[in-house]
Amino acid sequence: MKPSLVKGTRDFGPEQMSKRLFIFDTIRQTFRRFGFQPLETPSMENLSTLTGKYGDEGDQLLFKILNSGDFSAGLTEADLAQGSKKLTPRLAEKGLRYDLTVPFARYVVMNRHALPMPFKRYQMQPVWRADRPQKGRYREFYQCDADVVGTDSLLCEAEIVLMVHEVFRNLGVRNFTLKVNNRKILAGIAEAIGRPGEESTLAVAIDKLDKIGQEKVIDELRERGFTDENITALQPLFTINGLPADVLASLRTWLAQSALAQQGIAELDETLQLADGLGLADSRVEIDVTLARGLSYYTGAIFEVKANGVSIGSVSGGGRYDNLTGTFGMPGLSGVGISFGVDRIYDVMDELQLFPASAGQGTQVLLACFDAQGRALALPLLSQLRAANVPAELYPDLAKVKKQLDYANQKQIPYVVLIGSDEVQSGLLSVKNMVSGEQQKLSAPAIIDLLSHR
Amino acid sequence: MKPSLVKGTRDFGPEQMSKRLFIFDTIRQTFRRFGFQPLETPSMENLSTLTGKYGDEGDQLLFKILNSGDFSAGLTEADLAQGSKKLTPRLAEKGLRYDLTVPFARYVVMNRHALPMPFKRYQMQPVWRADRPQKGRYREFYQCDADVVGTDSLLCEAEIVLMVHEVFRNLGVRNFTLKVNNRKILAGIAEAIGRPGEESTLAVAIDKLDKIGQEKVIDELRERGFTDENITALQPLFTINGLPADVLASLRTWLAQSALAQQGIAELDETLQLADGLGLADSRVEIDVTLARGLSYYTGAIFEVKANGVSIGSVSGGGRYDNLTGTFGMPGLSGVGISFGVDRIYDVMDELQLFPASAGQGTQVLLACFDAQGRALALPLLSQLRAANVPAELYPDLAKVKKQLDYANQKQIPYVVLIGSDEVQSGLLSVKNMVSGEQQKLSAPAIIDLLSHR
Repeated sequence: MKPSLVKGTRDFGPEQMSKRLFIFDTIRQTFRRFGFQPLETPSMENLSTLTGKYGDEGDQLLFKILNSGDFSAGLTEADLAQGSKKLTPRLAEKGLRYDLTVPFARYVVMNRHALPMPFKRYQMQPVWRADRPQKGRYREFYQCDADVVGTDSLLCEAEIVLMVHEVFRNLGVRNFTLKVNNRKILAGIAEAIGRPGEESTLAVAIDKLDKIGQEKVIDELRERGFTDENITALQPLFTINGLPADVLASLRTWLAQSALAQQGIAELDETLQLADGLGLADSRVEIDVTLARGLSYYTGAIFEVKANGVSIGSVSGGGRYDNLTGTFGMPGLSGVGISFGVDRIYDVMDELQLFPASAGQGTQVLLACFDAQGRALALPLLSQLRAANVPAELYPDLAKVKKQLDYANQKQIPYVVLIGSDEVQSGLLSVKNMVSGEQQKLSAPAIIDLLSHR
Repeated sequence: MKPSLVKGTRDFGPEQMSKRLFIFDTIRQTFRRFGFQPLETPSMENLSTLTGKYGDEGDQLLFKILNSGDFSAGLTEADLAQGSKKLTPRLAEKGLRYDLTVPFARYVVMNRHALPMPFKRYQMQPVWRADRPQKGRYREFYQCDADVVGTDSLLCEAEIVLMVHEVFRNLGVRNFTLKVNNRKILAGIAEAIGRPGEESTLAVAIDKLDKIGQEKVIDELRERGFTDENITALQPLFTINGLPADVLASLRTWLAQSALAQQGIAELDETLQLADGLGLADSRVEIDVTLARGLSYYTGAIFEVKANGVSIGSVSGGGRYDNLTGTFGMPGLSGVGISFGVDRIYDVMDELQLFPASAGQGTQVLLACFDAQGRALALPLLSQLRAANVPAELYPDLAKVKKQLDYANQKQIPYVVLIGSDEVQSGLLSVKNMVSGEQQKLSAPAIIDLLSHR
């Protein structure tokens, strides 16, 4: 009879939720200022919409919903003998959203004639993956995505650079790095070292440079069939660093022979100049030509954000793609997007104690009474406090003072107003600061004034 | 290849979402002022947590999640022959949340030693029901619940009365009725008419008085075995009406012989007095002794809110229960709760055009340029507008003026700043009011001033 949570899922209690809401609200306000509009899509999609979009492994990780009604009617032993994989389409036609990108693509295709283009939308919703649960990996987690589709203007990339800076600064995360790259530069490197078209294989290895170091990257490249000549030609990669302008200059020289690389370099350059024009101050941008994020569907810019001073993976990432909606029969739609990982951002802010005191704040004051006379004073005060936008509670029972103070402590309510017989007689109420322990006597209007200006 | 939505589910595009967010934010802020704290539970629960809580019909309406991996291993033809119902537990051990009450109960039981009591929580999350889709009935919809558990103080009922008034007034829904009743009064009526203990059967019939009228209610009671004596004794029910104080007085006289009824009447009376003490003004409370809301698990107060002037069902409802967590082995936990139906509230506000203009508002101003010189002026202005908390966009391409104005119109952006060659020369930018069509020339600081004070 003891109830439990589904493995890999979590409850978010009041304190966690208040902090999470701070993150959600901050991101939402920033998205809004940048002209992104909210979209929500259903938790369930037809499996025909979801399957084949995330690779074989992804298809395995989709949560499928058992058909309603008499789902097993007509199933035979021969069907059973085919095994679970073949049986699945007979039992389930719906699945839970795996990410926000595919539902967004479906929405764009279904509403293509009504949408303003370029279309800027954000979406903040949970997604589900039937992963084996492990530390830091959950079966249900939120994604917060912002995308612009229907334009290939680099202004969109520049705005994402600005928006990333604003989101993290508004959250209070000041020490972060925004790594940027461009797939065309990776493709140009592949060209320059004599392996044109093999930027994906190249990227898989060099993407790990941070983690495993130069030698192991070279070992892996050899294993993947890169020759000594290829690897020698790759050497400049390991020495390029510095400010974005210096990195761009080095790349221009090294990759002078690759038109593709020069295009990627020019795009990055223009993006950073536009960001500059937008007034980007105290830039955290770093060009990292090893950044690939699995490349997947990125065709231009690639972004990744890491918080410094904590060993938590990337907290945000994204890039430009050229074919969001092709699988739904609407080819050639270009866009660029960024995704913020709320769970990891939470972990970073928690570890570095970056949540503002206000983020976890619930009730600001508890009114404690001990008899009907006290309550008669408390009731109007309670409503006046709330009208002044002060979250306030009246302990619902006429309990002993200790019980009421314990309640305030447990809920981390910073003020308690005690209304005993003295207070009823004098009309001056005792206000106890639960942090400092100080106590003072104040009139009801003075209490409202004190708490509404905190 | 044409993608579609799962039947009974919906996308919420930018305009709908903005309005929905206005409702969510308003309810959330009100809950918060009343000292309710946020909670979120996972979308999936173990089926052992969900089944048996909603009756047979409810169990059928649970969405079940197909087990991952080789779910059909070990299944035989004999298993198949048992039919879908018996097969389900072999294929699915998880289900989607059907309401917010059962997950809340599970959470309370699992965290009982750490929770402050009384525990006040609110929860705003989607729920799923495998209903046959029909107009106004969806398979995925949001519930917004606030509950206090761990006290039987009638202050909680009074606070709900206040909170209902605040939520709807803050939403701009001023013309509503909050019907209240108490199960003990219904039980007392059953006693008084000679059918003690049969308040559920009685309630099923009289609950429909509004819809089908007195005669049909009496017909139904006869069908359910109520005698002429019972029905004669019930007559006062059909004439009781008026202000709450008058209704209470009539009930006191009619039900003088029922101690249970007198207790229910006293509870209602105290609740309304406490609400009065809390300063409830322009009360929309109406005592309706036919209100039952299916009775289900209600043991004391019963609430229901209807918006007047529209034929949309109840927009909010709730009541007191005595045994939230009994099925999870924690008996005797009393509580009282209220649930707001966001979808219906949306429909009411939409039909009565009650959404404030600000609720649907996205981008406030579009900057339109036509060459690089214009863009150089636009970039810093864009960031300054955003810094002044004005949602702003720069059209990402150097498109023709018509295209950019069409974009603004389609997105209902109220202002467009046109930056052509004249504007570049003079530094005075053309500001077009897209509603009135008026146009004026202003400096960049004047534009920021205009838009940030709107």
